[in-house]
Amino acid sequence: MNRLKVRRLLENFFLEDIGDRDVTSDFLFPQDVIGELHFISKQAGVFCGTEIIQEGYQLLDPSITVQVHIQDGTAISSGESIAAIKGPIVNLLKGERVILNLIQRMSGIATLTSKALKILNDKETKICDTRKTTPGLRIFEKYAVQIGGGVNHRFGLYDAVMLKDNHIAFAGSISNAVETLRDKLGHMVKIEVETENEAQVKEAVLAGADCIMFDNRTPEEINTLIQLVPSDITTEASGGINLNNLADYRKAGVDYISLGALTHSAPSLDISANVSIKQRRPNYESI
Amino acid sequence: MNRLKVRRLLENFFLEDIGDRDVTSDFLFPQDVIGELHFISKQAGVFCGTEIIQEGYQLLDPSITVQVHIQDGTAISSGESIAAIKGPIVNLLKGERVILNLIQRMSGIATLTSKALKILNDKETKICDTRKTTPGLRIFEKYAVQIGGGVNHRFGLYDAVMLKDNHIAFAGSISNAVETLRDKLGHMVKIEVETENEAQVKEAVLAGADCIMFDNRTPEEINTLIQLVPSDITTEASGGINLNNLADYRKAGVDYISLGALTHSAPSLDISANVSIKQRRPNYESI
Amino acid sequence: MNRLKVRRLLENFFLEDIGDRDVTSDFLFPQDVIGELHFISKQAGVFCGTEIIQEGYQLLDPSITVQVHIQDGTAISSGESIAAIKGPIVNLLKGERVILNLIQRMSGIATLTSKALKILNDKETKICDTRKTTPGLRIFEKYAVQIGGGVNHRFGLYDAVMLKDNHIAFAGSISNAVETLRDKLGHMVKIEVETENEAQVKEAVLAGADCIMFDNRTPEEINTLIQLVPSDITTEASGGINLNNLADYRKAGVDYISLGALTHSAPSLDISANVSIKQRRPNYESI
Amino acid sequence: MNRLKVRRLLENFFLEDIGDRDVTSDFLFPQDVIGELHFISKQAGVFCGTEIIQEGYQLLDPSITVQVHIQDGTAISSGESIAAIKGPIVNLLKGERVILNLIQRMSGIATLTSKALKILNDKETKICDTRKTTPGLRIFEKYAVQIGGGVNHRFGLYDAVMLKDNHIAFAGSISNAVETLRDKLGHMVKIEVETENEAQVKEAVLAGADCIMFDNRTPEEINTLIQLVPSDITTEASGGINLNNLADYRKAGVDYISLGALTHSAPSLDISANVSIKQRRPNYESI
Amino acid sequence: MNRLKVRRLLENFFLEDIGDRDVTSDFLFPQDVIGELHFISKQAGVFCGTEIIQEGYQLLDPSITVQVHIQDGTAISSGESIAAIKGPIVNLLKGERVILNLIQRMSGIATLTSKALKILNDKETKICDTRKTTPGLRIFEKYAVQIGGGVNHRFGLYDAVMLKDNHIAFAGSISNAVETLRDKLGHMVKIEVETENEAQVKEAVLAGADCIMFDNRTPEEINTLIQLVPSDITTEASGGINLNNLADYRKAGVDYISLGALTHSAPSLDISANVSIKQRRPNYESI
Amino acid sequence: MNRLKVRRLLENFFLEDIGDRDVTSDFLFPQDVIGELHFISKQAGVFCGTEIIQEGYQLLDPSITVQVHIQDGTAISSGESIAAIKGPIVNLLKGERVILNLIQRMSGIATLTSKALKILNDKETKICDTRKTTPGLRIFEKYAVQIGGGVNHRFGLYDAVMLKDNHIAFAGSISNAVETLRDKLGHMVKIEVETENEAQVKEAVLAGADCIMFDNRTPEEINTLIQLVPSDITTEASGGINLNNLADYRKAGVDYISLGALTHSAPSLDISANVSIKQRRPNYESI
Repeated sequence: MNRLKVRRLLENFFLEDIGDRDVTSDFLFPQDVIGELHFISKQAGVFCGTEIIQEGYQLLDPSITVQVHIQDGTAISSGESIAAIKGPIVNLLKGERVILNLIQRMSGIATLTSKALKILNDKETKICDTRKTTPGLRIFEKYAVQIGGGVNHRFGLYDAVMLKDNHIAFAGSISNAVETLRDKLGHMVKIEVETENEAQVKEAVLAGADCIMFDNRTPEEINTLIQLVPSDITTEASGGINLNNLADYRKAGVDYISLGALTHSAPSLDISANVSIKQRRPNYESI
Repeated sequence: MNRLKVRRLLENFFLEDIGDRDVTSDFLFPQDVIGELHFISKQAGVFCGTEIIQEGYQLLDPSITVQVHIQDGTAISSGESIAAIKGPIVNLLKGERVILNLIQRMSGIATLTSKALKILNDKETKICDTRKTTPGLRIFEKYAVQIGGGVNHRFGLYDAVMLKDNHIAFAGSISNAVETLRDKLGHMVKIEVETENEAQVKEAVLAGADCIMFDNRTPEEINTLIQLVPSDITTEASGGINLNNLADYRKAGVDYISLGALTHSAPSLDISANVSIKQRRPNYESI
Repeated sequence: MNRLKVRRLLENFFLEDIGDRDVTSDFLFPQDVIGELHFISKQAGVFCGTEIIQEGYQLLDPSITVQVHIQDGTAISSGESIAAIKGPIVNLLKGERVILNLIQRMSGIATLTSKALKILNDKETKICDTRKTTPGLRIFEKYAVQIGGGVNHRFGLYDAVMLKDNHIAFAGSISNAVETLRDKLGHMVKIEVETENEAQVKEAVLAGADCIMFDNRTPEEINTLIQLVPSDITTEASGGINLNNLADYRKAGVDYISLGALTHSAPSLDISANVSIKQRRPNYESI
Repeated sequence: MNRLKVRRLLENFFLEDIGDRDVTSDFLFPQDVIGELHFISKQAGVFCGTEIIQEGYQLLDPSITVQVHIQDGTAISSGESIAAIKGPIVNLLKGERVILNLIQRMSGIATLTSKALKILNDKETKICDTRKTTPGLRIFEKYAVQIGGGVNHRFGLYDAVMLKDNHIAFAGSISNAVETLRDKLGHMVKIEVETENEAQVKEAVLAGADCIMFDNRTPEEINTLIQLVPSDITTEASGGINLNNLADYRKAGVDYISLGALTHSAPSLDISANVSIKQRRPNYESI
Repeated sequence: MNRLKVRRLLENFFLEDIGDRDVTSDFLFPQDVIGELHFISKQAGVFCGTEIIQEGYQLLDPSITVQVHIQDGTAISSGESIAAIKGPIVNLLKGERVILNLIQRMSGIATLTSKALKILNDKETKICDTRKTTPGLRIFEKYAVQIGGGVNHRFGLYDAVMLKDNHIAFAGSISNAVETLRDKLGHMVKIEVETENEAQVKEAVLAGADCIMFDNRTPEEINTLIQLVPSDITTEASGGINLNNLADYRKAGVDYISLGALTHSAPSLDISANVSIKQRRPNYESI
Repeated sequence: MNRLKVRRLLENFFLEDIGDRDVTSDFLFPQDVIGELHFISKQAGVFCGTEIIQEGYQLLDPSITVQVHIQDGTAISSGESIAAIKGPIVNLLKGERVILNLIQRMSGIATLTSKALKILNDKETKICDTRKTTPGLRIFEKYAVQIGGGVNHRFGLYDAVMLKDNHIAFAGSISNAVETLRDKLGHMVKIEVETENEAQVKEAVLAGADCIMFDNRTPEEINTLIQLVPSDITTEASGGINLNNLADYRKAGVDYISLGALTHSAPSLDISANVSIKQRRPNYESI
């Protein structure tokens, strides 16, 4: 993740939660009362968010020291310690909720992605995400998918073409649309075409799509349609696939399966923050 | 919701998704090809997000007209039309995903809140949210809880005091903490104290808390603890309560039950966007 | 004060004053000419602004060291040294005016608040501020009131309800308004009602206001009205009270007196900046 | 004033006061209840702020219409109506305080400037401001000085040179400093030199200053010093001049007198907002 | 171009040039003196910038009307009128320089791109840009290249892979690097490999690059190297190619030639702004 | 340059180029692989940009160390090393292009300015820039002109008056305009008047302009016109002057010659970035 963007977003999140002041901690704890906070997992899963903890607390109070015990992508068990953070109690407590809200979501996404990979259990097919991410959090959620073992589909409307039914309908035909775009967009932008039947798949192949997506097709339908696609065109299954029917797509033969649920329906991984140790900082200059 | 803040956030969300340009639509559709887009619910639920649709499309392209057919808080059924949006196809398609991502989440939260109210089915007890919201989206998520029939707990660290176990431990005692805060914070800030046992409840009552929260207590334990609280102090149950055990808290006697799940675990309500009608704008000056 | 917000605002203030460059200092002094600047009070008063000096100079030039000799809230006399700042002359001079403008205002507010407390001389009644603050500076001005011994009224329209005459007129009645708000806003938001006569006070009491404000009432009128208010409802006097008639409100019996003048009419406390000592930094790498 | 900057600042001010929502008005008044708000002066003075009222309400709610009855710089008497604003009550009330806070300060400054001109009563000498403005509000405060009949000194460190005692001390001499700056800064930047005695005035004249300031000098001292300055160099008196001793400087012969008090000590002009007329908007589409 | 981004950038550019006020026009012309401004080309070239003129003036003053006579990409001759803008003189003059600075640069880039296409004169080979754009202006400069008939290479580090010599050196080998990236990045990101000799070209082909770039190769060298590349891999020539030697690359057989000069060395197209017609707006309400 | 502004702009430039992530380097190089990058000049010229290299890399990764070998304004020859930057390879490569794009432009401007000075070769006449700068980069480009030995004309519309033909036409006359502005603007703003013939020069002199510009005049015409201007008024030649005819203006007698080409047509100075040395950081804690 681009550190400059991560910091700018974290700053906004802290401003949202803290506003002008923390009416609880700011009035109870002077700066020289220091303590130690531990992030402990309360569920098994795949952790994601080391940079959030480090940059987040560093931003809030540069005197805070952070020790993260694990790397992003590590499988953690319930009760496992993720990180130890030491510094003024007032700021440990002030930053806790924002950071937890974010790493719980990111770890939830990484965990769900990892689970999807196990359910699919097919080395020939990768799992990827969609643009169904939380507004404002795409950088974090796409990163979490990748940490969970998935790969990222396009990041936005700007970095790759996806010709959907509406585009095709208004553009006249798949070939028209692909031709127009190839001509104008040059060689560094991939073009994917959404298809629903044999005719469309054939047209997409002829039009020279980089990737063909089978939209809302059963594994059986895909088995048939994929015969029409030469091996140098990437294939993707999408639409109506979730963790319940994902195993049915094993050996369907597509290169990618995209799951909106990875980002829009991943339950947060439960992580708690425990504070311990309290002491006055020796020789702390309280002014 | 503060319209100025809503617009500023929506602008950021569009910039996240569109970046410098929409490589698909910007190159396929000239400004004078207009169409109509319909947001249709694909699930039954409680809708929330009229302002998002209106301000979102207005921001993206002031020539777009929006007709929202329902008000926030309306129960909708699968297949029901939510809104009709008319204007240049290129911008209808460009804005669709960001707006859907947001209103699906907001409607999901409103729907879950409404469901929680039905499960609890207790006119004496209200359902409220927590600070376990998505970073950057608190204004939208808190609004959705309210639209679903819930009420909002504090918005951040800045608008109300919540004395948690960590605060109490470091402050010495509940009475110390409440006294310090009352003295410094004045009369417009409410103070809530988290308690786990009789001794703490008694101390919180004596200290003059505005609200006492029973943290991670069973309905039975609450029945006992609540006897210690005079009627002019508000009571709240929190911690470990979810939709599965919520009904057990019916008649527990607390004024409020707070559920983190309302915002951190609400599944999105499925809403789709269908485009229809295509025509050239008459006499549109395409330059 | 939220350090992240303080820094963001200070950055804006420096950009306002310095623009692209300081046409005086930037062209006269190389980075390796260092000096020492002293902030000296030229009036007796209550100082407020240590964080401004520290964060301000740290932001402008991290090589500058700041030693603040006193804490916020300290009574200072004319001629007393507040802080010593050491570093490149060019940046000492560049930051001086912005920081002075801010701490003079904050100290002026703290001083006026402290003076008001002495004039009132009533341990049963606290002095608080209003929303009549300088746009963009509320965080600093509310903090200064508190440092001067006052307490803060609500921070904005978002954190507490104030039912004024206009609200009541349009809502139909005090009871209607309070009932509507209680129902929608939940338990963490205080409701204050502005009253002008016995009927309104009685209605506010019945409606269950958390706080009743006597608007533009004389001490004598308040003596009468306050009999109608049970002790668990907070009382506030407001409107037409200033430092000249404040003493008349001693023993009026209200819990709070709010003074708009604390923030909209506090004269700045005069503080000057004296530069001394000039030397080349030894071994300074001037590139 | 640069309208783009005015709007950006007003937006920040509204966000400061309203936050996520107005807990009073947003919950009491639907959008279709419209009313009329009048800004009425409660003191005699010079009004300044028409653009604030217009742009402020336009920003908050484009459906609001604003009629300002007077121009900036008009002398108003107590009780005079300044503007009528019509639209949804909820937004009339939401924007009132921010706009009042700003126009009261701006009118206060215009009034004080106008008063200073009358006290001085000297057509040969103009009154100007300083950089002792409120951080973040310089554009508004400098504008108000001009509306009150004063002129603006430099806007910041970026648009004109002011050689103060500290600069001169560190630069070695006035001539050194002026020569260095003339050479580097070119022909579009004015250079003013602060002087305290004959020797300095002479040196500044020889160095070719555009403007010579007599710092902390009595009218008598100025009478002597000004003899040393040729007529094509502008003169300014500054330091220790306030409304009490300003009249003494009549006929002192300087071109300008600068008064920090214009911006740092102007009492706000009292203006109130009265709401009247309430009705439902006919055929208002409330969705 | 994303209109929201265009407007945000234009706003910053106006703030840069206008600051707090236009000391010339703001003091000479009241709002009701209206006029008409014409943008006239003073050189032949390819125009680019209609959206800048429209959005720019709309942002500055919504009462201004803009009529652009030509579309982006039109060849214009010296003396040709590009647009007529009508409204308050004060704002016509205030916005002129910023808009001219931008459209002159954009038209310069479009013109140079168009010229490059004519020099190359090879229908099989397209001209594209690089990341050597002006910081902060990439959206405008990339758009101008496209308007001039070129296509865009990647927009930034985020949307496509370019393996340069440094990357390859540190990654060990082309195959290592491509394999790692393919695995992690998924199917929507193109991978281009920079090569300098036969061995590298062969390795890049085997590694499965989407595009192979011949870096700093002569047309003759390219003739040889290109034999090693199968037709489904795109080829690009780059490095050391400019308008003087571009014709030598005709029939070199590459699909794309990238030219940094398109954006870093395009001379501005000379466009002037002439103001005409002056009149008072009838019935203009000047308050 | 104001460091706070430089950093804010650099942050925007990095966000433009890097977006959410660098798809090449971020996936190839772990943080603990460090290297050294050298900026080497590939052309002779005048270097400008030390602060960009230092602040740029410091912003991107505080662990990077920068050693700049030369000062701004130094004449460099082809092959000369400008700076050595050491740190994580991933971030050295990520920041390279943005920094090069900026320092190449700044050095190009400094080099062109220096060349103009040599061509003019007239100690009595200075070279200055105009407002024809790249939108968003004025602070950098104006600084580069000064580093190249030129001086800056006004920075924007806010810091000095320039009365052009359009202003004069609409204001009625030069004297009207100057009088109005002198009265309103006070003593710290310079007024320059654009003239084209004897009558205008005479009027400008009488009106008391601080500076008179001869617009689009030949050296011979200037020789005549300049006789009309007393020595205490600054003179400037502008319009139609470029590096080809600049020498003709030697001994024309004007104080300043302004050249738009300095900023709108300066070719970038070619600078390359070479990476060397690769090693794992000893004991680097990679988590």
